[in-house]
Amino acid sequence: MEYRIEKDTMGEVKVPADKLWGAQTERSRNNFKIGPSASMPLEIIYGFAYLKKAAAYTNCELGVLPEEKRDLIAKACDEILEGKHDDQFPLVIWQTGSGTQSNMNVNEVVANRAHQLAGKTIGEGEKTLQPNDDVNKSQSSNDTFPTGMHIAAYKKIVETTIPGVTRLRDTLKKKSEAFMDVVKIGRTHLMDATPLTLGQEFSGYVSQLDHGLKALNNSLDHLSELALGGTAVGTGINTPLGYAQKVAEYIAKFTELPFKTAENKFEALAAHDALVGTHATLKQLAVSLNKIANDIRLMASGPRSGIGEILIPANEPGSSIMPGKVNPTQCEALTMVCAQVIGNDVAVSVGGTQGHYELNVFKPVMAANLLQSAQLIGDACTSFEEHCAAGIEPNHGKIKELLNNSLMLVTALNTKIGYYKAAEIANTAHKNGTTLKEEAVNLGYLTAEEFDEWVKPEDMVGSLK
Amino acid sequence: MEYRIEKDTMGEVKVPADKLWGAQTERSRNNFKIGPSASMPLEIIYGFAYLKKAAAYTNCELGVLPEEKRDLIAKACDEILEGKHDDQFPLVIWQTGSGTQSNMNVNEVVANRAHQLAGKTIGEGEKTLQPNDDVNKSQSSNDTFPTGMHIAAYKKIVETTIPGVTRLRDTLKKKSEAFMDVVKIGRTHLMDATPLTLGQEFSGYVSQLDHGLKALNNSLDHLSELALGGTAVGTGINTPLGYAQKVAEYIAKFTELPFKTAENKFEALAAHDALVGTHATLKQLAVSLNKIANDIRLMASGPRSGIGEILIPANEPGSSIMPGKVNPTQCEALTMVCAQVIGNDVAVSVGGTQGHYELNVFKPVMAANLLQSAQLIGDACTSFEEHCAAGIEPNHGKIKELLNNSLMLVTALNTKIGYYKAAEIANTAHKNGTTLKEEAVNLGYLTAEEFDEWVKPEDMVGSLK
Amino acid sequence: MEYRIEKDTMGEVKVPADKLWGAQTERSRNNFKIGPSASMPLEIIYGFAYLKKAAAYTNCELGVLPEEKRDLIAKACDEILEGKHDDQFPLVIWQTGSGTQSNMNVNEVVANRAHQLAGKTIGEGEKTLQPNDDVNKSQSSNDTFPTGMHIAAYKKIVETTIPGVTRLRDTLKKKSEAFMDVVKIGRTHLMDATPLTLGQEFSGYVSQLDHGLKALNNSLDHLSELALGGTAVGTGINTPLGYAQKVAEYIAKFTELPFKTAENKFEALAAHDALVGTHATLKQLAVSLNKIANDIRLMASGPRSGIGEILIPANEPGSSIMPGKVNPTQCEALTMVCAQVIGNDVAVSVGGTQGHYELNVFKPVMAANLLQSAQLIGDACTSFEEHCAAGIEPNHGKIKELLNNSLMLVTALNTKIGYYKAAEIANTAHKNGTTLKEEAVNLGYLTAEEFDEWVKPEDMVGSLK
Amino acid sequence: MEYRIEKDTMGEVKVPADKLWGAQTERSRNNFKIGPSASMPLEIIYGFAYLKKAAAYTNCELGVLPEEKRDLIAKACDEILEGKHDDQFPLVIWQTGSGTQSNMNVNEVVANRAHQLAGKTIGEGEKTLQPNDDVNKSQSSNDTFPTGMHIAAYKKIVETTIPGVTRLRDTLKKKSEAFMDVVKIGRTHLMDATPLTLGQEFSGYVSQLDHGLKALNNSLDHLSELALGGTAVGTGINTPLGYAQKVAEYIAKFTELPFKTAENKFEALAAHDALVGTHATLKQLAVSLNKIANDIRLMASGPRSGIGEILIPANEPGSSIMPGKVNPTQCEALTMVCAQVIGNDVAVSVGGTQGHYELNVFKPVMAANLLQSAQLIGDACTSFEEHCAAGIEPNHGKIKELLNNSLMLVTALNTKIGYYKAAEIANTAHKNGTTLKEEAVNLGYLTAEEFDEWVKPEDMVGSLK
Repeated sequence: MEYRIEKDTMGEVKVPADKLWGAQTERSRNNFKIGPSASMPLEIIYGFAYLKKAAAYTNCELGVLPEEKRDLIAKACDEILEGKHDDQFPLVIWQTGSGTQSNMNVNEVVANRAHQLAGKTIGEGEKTLQPNDDVNKSQSSNDTFPTGMHIAAYKKIVETTIPGVTRLRDTLKKKSEAFMDVVKIGRTHLMDATPLTLGQEFSGYVSQLDHGLKALNNSLDHLSELALGGTAVGTGINTPLGYAQKVAEYIAKFTELPFKTAENKFEALAAHDALVGTHATLKQLAVSLNKIANDIRLMASGPRSGIGEILIPANEPGSSIMPGKVNPTQCEALTMVCAQVIGNDVAVSVGGTQGHYELNVFKPVMAANLLQSAQLIGDACTSFEEHCAAGIEPNHGKIKELLNNSLMLVTALNTKIGYYKAAEIANTAHKNGTTLKEEAVNLGYLTAEEFDEWVKPEDMVGSLK
Repeated sequence: MEYRIEKDTMGEVKVPADKLWGAQTERSRNNFKIGPSASMPLEIIYGFAYLKKAAAYTNCELGVLPEEKRDLIAKACDEILEGKHDDQFPLVIWQTGSGTQSNMNVNEVVANRAHQLAGKTIGEGEKTLQPNDDVNKSQSSNDTFPTGMHIAAYKKIVETTIPGVTRLRDTLKKKSEAFMDVVKIGRTHLMDATPLTLGQEFSGYVSQLDHGLKALNNSLDHLSELALGGTAVGTGINTPLGYAQKVAEYIAKFTELPFKTAENKFEALAAHDALVGTHATLKQLAVSLNKIANDIRLMASGPRSGIGEILIPANEPGSSIMPGKVNPTQCEALTMVCAQVIGNDVAVSVGGTQGHYELNVFKPVMAANLLQSAQLIGDACTSFEEHCAAGIEPNHGKIKELLNNSLMLVTALNTKIGYYKAAEIANTAHKNGTTLKEEAVNLGYLTAEEFDEWVKPEDMVGSLK
Repeated sequence: MEYRIEKDTMGEVKVPADKLWGAQTERSRNNFKIGPSASMPLEIIYGFAYLKKAAAYTNCELGVLPEEKRDLIAKACDEILEGKHDDQFPLVIWQTGSGTQSNMNVNEVVANRAHQLAGKTIGEGEKTLQPNDDVNKSQSSNDTFPTGMHIAAYKKIVETTIPGVTRLRDTLKKKSEAFMDVVKIGRTHLMDATPLTLGQEFSGYVSQLDHGLKALNNSLDHLSELALGGTAVGTGINTPLGYAQKVAEYIAKFTELPFKTAENKFEALAAHDALVGTHATLKQLAVSLNKIANDIRLMASGPRSGIGEILIPANEPGSSIMPGKVNPTQCEALTMVCAQVIGNDVAVSVGGTQGHYELNVFKPVMAANLLQSAQLIGDACTSFEEHCAAGIEPNHGKIKELLNNSLMLVTALNTKIGYYKAAEIANTAHKNGTTLKEEAVNLGYLTAEEFDEWVKPEDMVGSLK
Repeated sequence: MEYRIEKDTMGEVKVPADKLWGAQTERSRNNFKIGPSASMPLEIIYGFAYLKKAAAYTNCELGVLPEEKRDLIAKACDEILEGKHDDQFPLVIWQTGSGTQSNMNVNEVVANRAHQLAGKTIGEGEKTLQPNDDVNKSQSSNDTFPTGMHIAAYKKIVETTIPGVTRLRDTLKKKSEAFMDVVKIGRTHLMDATPLTLGQEFSGYVSQLDHGLKALNNSLDHLSELALGGTAVGTGINTPLGYAQKVAEYIAKFTELPFKTAENKFEALAAHDALVGTHATLKQLAVSLNKIANDIRLMASGPRSGIGEILIPANEPGSSIMPGKVNPTQCEALTMVCAQVIGNDVAVSVGGTQGHYELNVFKPVMAANLLQSAQLIGDACTSFEEHCAAGIEPNHGKIKELLNNSLMLVTALNTKIGYYKAAEIANTAHKNGTTLKEEAVNLGYLTAEEFDEWVKPEDMVGSLK
């Protein structure tokens, strides 16, 4: 491989000749061989591209950067955002906890690409832009990395998570309405209980996701606060007057998202409770989705020796040894995602506890976990909606059979003959393997006609429909 | 011990003669010898007392319970709320996951106490009230237990957690203001960085707690939703028309808290995402508090061989072997609480994932963890405020010494001579053990006068104060 | 209330006159009002009693404590171990993270009780024993608290956890043997699969618990290492020669458990990986138990509209509204315990990460969580064994019905006619609602006689029985 | 793109013409667009390659597969193991929870590659091997996937984790020996305490890692148990006599690792406690490493305003804004890894709790988390050793200065003048900002000569060195 020489404050470094990155990126590449390369999420790199461009515009507007430098920086950032330089960001999550090295990776790529855009060859001639003095002007890793991760997280949530969850929520809502008159046996403690409708059951799922979406939306306000302008320790040293507000406005403009400057920059560098809080709402969604997916696979269990109250789409052969088997695979993918998100929540929390003084140095691990959870929940909901939820149908025959067998219809008699006599009827029928009606009459507590009039499943589901 | 005989639908049970509880409580006591007795939080019992009274009023108003029964139930519930029967609730958390047995414990105690209030002797004569048919009228364990736990959790948060956190927040705010001009060395990566003021540092803590309190308050809306009226499976079977809304109004009235009936009762029984969501915000607070307490003990470390920038109150001898030692014990208590809350969050989440069909049967463990976390955070913040935060004072001598030594003041020169020359000055001073000024002049990058004019710590903290 | 004056190095303190504790205990009581009082587990106090007695014997044997002081200390410790002074330990978990205050609580109680044993009145005359110089001789909180928690944890595990888990394991083993010929439908993905026997299914549970017990036993070796002799920072300052080995021998003798002195005292004070490691094995058991309890409640679900393959004991009425309902309450208690233990594991881990330099100051929270988990798992297994597992019986009728319906018996044909034709038979029967035999013959892939000979459930379970 | 048609039991599927995979892989690719493609770890694919080859050998030896098929399968598997087909495995973790689709991916690639090896063109002519009937012979996804994940995990641990941790442990051991006479101030509660040597401090780290490695090694026995031979539900249906033992022997031979057939196949399919148990030991290591890395960055803090007792290598510029700053970046990477592993442990545990009946369907998520943790810990330890630990040196000047300032040297006087007088000396010196010696003499408790003789730091570290 061919190399060129790049320099930083510690000296010279050999860098692959065809790469846009510089000395500090190369040092990091060599010093942090932990896990697969390039694990730092590209979404964060794109977040940097937005903010570098916004900083250039702000610096120019405030008179500390010439227009031609601004435009070169902006052009290079736009190219990054178009995905043209995805292979120029080889660093890993497991680097310095401030993400300094990824900040420098972006600074170096932008500076070198600007050199090319200015018609020159990298490594030759005076640098068109200095990575630190120009691209990083009025910035520090300590305020850029948190800004980049907030941009990345916010975008991921509004572009992937919320649409995915909403799509599933809407389909479950439609199913709930469609199944609103399908009376079925209820189950509590996994045991037969009084009836409800399949639509009512699904309405609970809709309500869970509605609450989850609300919590997620509530968390976005904190996430919309940007650290940029705090620079090294939150004081904003080396920034021109008015910089913090202005740069947040540019970021809001470029991303078309409601970002704003953080009211307190010291918090914004030293703590990442916004990530902790947002991830917690993703975890709440994971808890909800786990319940929903579990219910669906239990109701779909069978086809002959399970519950079998609903039918779900058969998307692929289910077994490499058992012919004809179809499995609730979307439920499985979704619940695996839930397990991951619940685990990620702990990683984010542990990282969040550990800020010291002016800086939390668990930024990359916190951001990466949040981005993964947000992606997985969004994708898994979309997949589940498309390949499972949309195709759910009641298995009317099985539903009716299980409903009519149930002893818990006896509950309808509580208000007629009291809890104790009702219990006696149910217990006797259970012991004898008979029906409630038979034993109700045998025990002399009511007549067959009364039973037929009082014990109607469809009348037992009504008051809250 | 003397016993009397109590009966339920499964037969007779011997119960200690002097106890108000009945057959089902006694069965549970014998069947669930798991951990210390009476671990079911009293707050939940009190939540039951509120709701039983509210249910009696509602039932009466809707014509299904006579006034005299209403008043007996109300009287017994009031006595419970006055703490007169705390020893009548011997059951444990680790019982049935619906909390049925604690519901019955309350039903039995209220019925037996009402029997006494009616001038009779427990175990003699016809029961004045039936535990199931009267005290539990228009209710099920499945809607009462979640209602009881929401009442308990909401009260705990507004009575203990929020006041405790707010008290600490307010004191930190006052300290932040008082210390706003105390310039000190900043630290990032635990390494010397550019200066800020001690007040700025504390303002970050205030901002963390402000955001945490906001998140906690946001979570209360879901927690204010009550399941009562859903009865067995969410359909509201065996409740009179208008019951759910009315009973929530009575609970709101008796507790003086803004409770309302849950819009979707199926969710309210089958899922406890409200607890998951609320606990997540307690966890966020724990993450914040851990950061704050950690910083404070690091800054107070010493007295001679540590950082020593602040002084904290000496509340007790610190060592049984090292005389004269004083330790940051309030920080330790608080961070231990944080560890517990982070763990509890996982327990709550795991419980939350596991609802099946119409019922989540991890109610007691979820509620108990939430109550513990809410109590501990409130108490620990109060303790920390009183015995530590309120007494924090700057150690001006040490602060000044550490500030003036620092090489990171060189950052002020970035905008004057560029990042690379500034770095050279710092590196040379570090290598030679000299001062920045000496090396700046030696290297010929600026004059002594320029140095004195440009490198002023108090000018480096300004733009965001 | 009456008070007496006690003193420590910080001055005078008023202490309730009837209490044996002294100044430092009282300070802690006032400074740490966090959660319920006396939450510090008594097991740890008892651990202290063992070690204080052992230290007295060792100090005496090594010539630094007179025999009469030794005997007074030993007598007071014996009384503590007999439970005579349980109400003298009012402190909470949430105190100093070294547990110093509980160490002093024990030192003060032993000293004051010794004063009484010497025939004197507390608070009057010269102290018979000094809490620090005599009772705490050759000790520090920093080595006593970890020693006390190792003693407490080890005892709890061998006295409660292992017996409880073993009892359940043995009953499941018996059930496995008793059910070894009960052929039933297997289920994978919750869907019908090839058959196995109920005994085989239970053998998997036994194997899980065997592996869990093995892991727990493996962890005991680290837990048997005692910090005592390390004193303040691990160097053993202020201990006589040979002390550490000797005192561990005395503890082993008094507890009749194989304790030994930790090879490295610096680790033993500064890190509590032994607790982390041991708790992790409790968590593994919780994971196993959750699976087992879940399976059992799924198999017991019904009675009429669920799976219903097994019958479990009906221990209590299951519902306050649905008469005659019986629920898998022991499964619920056990799985709630599992959720708690999984959460506790995180609390222990978080505490474990946070040692600084020579001391980990999360000792009380780590120890308390471990003790709770060990207790709960032991108790819950015992309860589950007694009230559920021991009474499990197959529901032969339902098992046979579900087995014979299954389409997955077709797997037996793979080796006869190939996977693809077998799948065709199953799919056709599923579509038509017919039997495998009908479709196998219809499709012309085999004769009815061949079907009967090849498709025998009892031949499909054999090779591994 | 060009396509060919592949078929499975559900019909025809279009597959990219240049890919070796078949219908079921393509279905999964389309049905599970969750997260980045090809996230299923290659290590698991390689595990499959080992087992498919072993199964072919066993099937041949037991007379159910002809030699020529065996050799084709073995050749294709060898190519996979050589990394020649890494791009043929596009599936994600978030698929069916049994991993069936990845099993089929391997079956299809092996079958199609064998077709090529037999000189034919994929998609043309009769298949040389059937994916199900030949490549998957005597197997099921349900026993192959757990076998593949055990192989992958075991290999990763012995090839990456243990060497990495051991390398770090050995370097810390060397440092401990080299620093054994460097007396320094001890710190407990982050406060000054009695002295110890830097080597003693490091010996605690070595002891932590020794215990962690022991725990990890203990967990390998369970991990060495292979499910293969259990097939669909653990009964071993459709396997020839002696298959399970034989195939494990072949796997042991091919991998050169001590694999053996699981004693209980029902556990091996339905529960993955081996992963839970093994991951728990990785988590224990993470807890230990977090403590170690934290200590090192605290001790290295400065350079001028921190503790500064040790010097660590300066590997890269530390700040994009603060010139000359060098940060403990390896500590940060390592502790971020620890946070991830602690989170992953929860994901693995949650997955482990959720097996149902004969199958746990959280296999991919459990395996992927374990592999990530094992890789990260191994890599991060190696990186930390190379770029940090190996270069640690004492900062003798600072160590001496901090030691001599300390008030805690007074502890040496406990055994001479008693704890209370010693405390008085320390408190007075602290209050007056004087030295212990001055105050000791002033207070008249000892002479200057006695002080010099009794208070020698180097004598205070001795008994346990």
